[in-house]
Amino acid sequence: MNFTEQYKAYLTAVEEAIAVYAKGMRFEPTVLSESMRYSLLAGGKRIRPVLFYAGLDVFGKDYRAESDLAVALECIHTYSLVHDDLPAMDNDAYRRGKLSNHMVFGEANAILAGDALLSYAFDLMLKASEKDKKHLLASRKLSFAAGAQGMIAGQSADLLWSGKQGGEEELFFIYENKTGRLLTAPLEMAAILGDGNVEKAAEFGGDLGILFQLTDDILDEKGNDGRVGKTLGKDKIEDKLTCIRVFGMERSERLADEYADKCLECVQRFAINGEFFKNIVSLVRQRDH
Amino acid sequence: MNFTEQYKAYLTAVEEAIAVYAKGMRFEPTVLSESMRYSLLAGGKRIRPVLFYAGLDVFGKDYRAESDLAVALECIHTYSLVHDDLPAMDNDAYRRGKLSNHMVFGEANAILAGDALLSYAFDLMLKASEKDKKHLLASRKLSFAAGAQGMIAGQSADLLWSGKQGGEEELFFIYENKTGRLLTAPLEMAAILGDGNVEKAAEFGGDLGILFQLTDDILDEKGNDGRVGKTLGKDKIEDKLTCIRVFGMERSERLADEYADKCLECVQRFAINGEFFKNIVSLVRQRDH
Repeated sequence: MNFTEQYKAYLTAVEEAIAVYAKGMRFEPTVLSESMRYSLLAGGKRIRPVLFYAGLDVFGKDYRAESDLAVALECIHTYSLVHDDLPAMDNDAYRRGKLSNHMVFGEANAILAGDALLSYAFDLMLKASEKDKKHLLASRKLSFAAGAQGMIAGQSADLLWSGKQGGEEELFFIYENKTGRLLTAPLEMAAILGDGNVEKAAEFGGDLGILFQLTDDILDEKGNDGRVGKTLGKDKIEDKLTCIRVFGMERSERLADEYADKCLECVQRFAINGEFFKNIVSLVRQRDH
Repeated sequence: MNFTEQYKAYLTAVEEAIAVYAKGMRFEPTVLSESMRYSLLAGGKRIRPVLFYAGLDVFGKDYRAESDLAVALECIHTYSLVHDDLPAMDNDAYRRGKLSNHMVFGEANAILAGDALLSYAFDLMLKASEKDKKHLLASRKLSFAAGAQGMIAGQSADLLWSGKQGGEEELFFIYENKTGRLLTAPLEMAAILGDGNVEKAAEFGGDLGILFQLTDDILDEKGNDGRVGKTLGKDKIEDKLTCIRVFGMERSERLADEYADKCLECVQRFAINGEFFKNIVSLVRQRDH
């Protein structure tokens, strides 16, 4: 299989798992379960669970057996988007090319749908933890990554530094936490379950997260709304602390190239047969959405 | 020890545990950890962890060893209040006699602080689950109670039925989920950890939840703001589906008496030496805040 086929194979497995779990989300009040399903089934690259499956595969594990944790990863990512899009937060009307959750279901329901997706993710992590200690350890890694000293710290810093002076240190704090943690977690979790090197996996995930956010900032500045699926140019309007503001476009592009190279080096140390991850790095560097 | 001393003993143990855990909530960005601590340390009756400790005590377990799950219970309750008070939800400026979280830290931070408290609660549940299978089972009970088919369903229904026709069935759906689930969970968890009868514990918790919400609605109608610590009379203004609206005050008071009696019967079946719980029932029935 070439890279595109391989990505599609993981993505299909992820989408199938999400579809099965989402089927269970039919309960009263309908508006709650519908708004959870609306955002969870909105598609997207599913890069976090794909990284998790690819990691398991590389370490010789049957990734299809780990759908609980794969869906948990995507639920956490999805809840963070639902809350992030709220008027009081980033105030975004579009997400993944569709109206954002609160635009369809109202703010109160979007808050609750986000809470419910987060709670559901943790319920899946507890369920997975019934298997053995490794699953519990993997779940705690994800829990830490998603929490107040992980992703949420990054979101908070992102808000805090909007419209304020801030330099490289603040920028990288946002990158590492807001984006990096939840890209690192799937690789660490795969390494834990597959007896790989957790530290090296984390190193790769961290650099990939920075690369991902650099290209995100670059795309927001020069991308095309239709391809990206969310409102672009907002970083500038809201005076977000981005790499463009700190380094300018040219140096940001160069930095992205440097991090892409760092990522490629990391792959060597983290996984034999890491060809898939090298291709992920190129995909992230060159993406136009 | 009499009841008041006993309650105070449990409450002191709960407050000490919360103080210790809150000490760990000092990280960047400060605004995030400060807003988490602000709401968690705002006091209150702490009835959920107190019920948990009392249940463990009745079943002969050392309750002080279970602070992870006690603090998790209070963090879940606290996050639900922080989100519930948001302008898009119940829009309440006061909570526990202090300005509500978003009035001090702003809406965006209140959303994130709620998310962070919820995530932290689950992290504590995963941590507790490292002990043994019973702790994992107890954590899953709490997870279910807090989730989309538990407390969040109740909050969603509460919003849904505001300003609409709705009768007994809708009212009890709200009572059982919004309030009942998180009062039932600590009793079930104590029964799981202490080898008690989980079903009977749940029965008591369910009736106590209904009693609690009946008296809450009654207090909102006729209580005293200063004692209750939150804005009163709001149910009527927002046309909430309350027992007052469905049954009127007189029948609501009678219903509260009936549920108090039901609770007392339940205690017999659920716990020998259940004197403490009988006193809790009287406390809830007669409370003025």
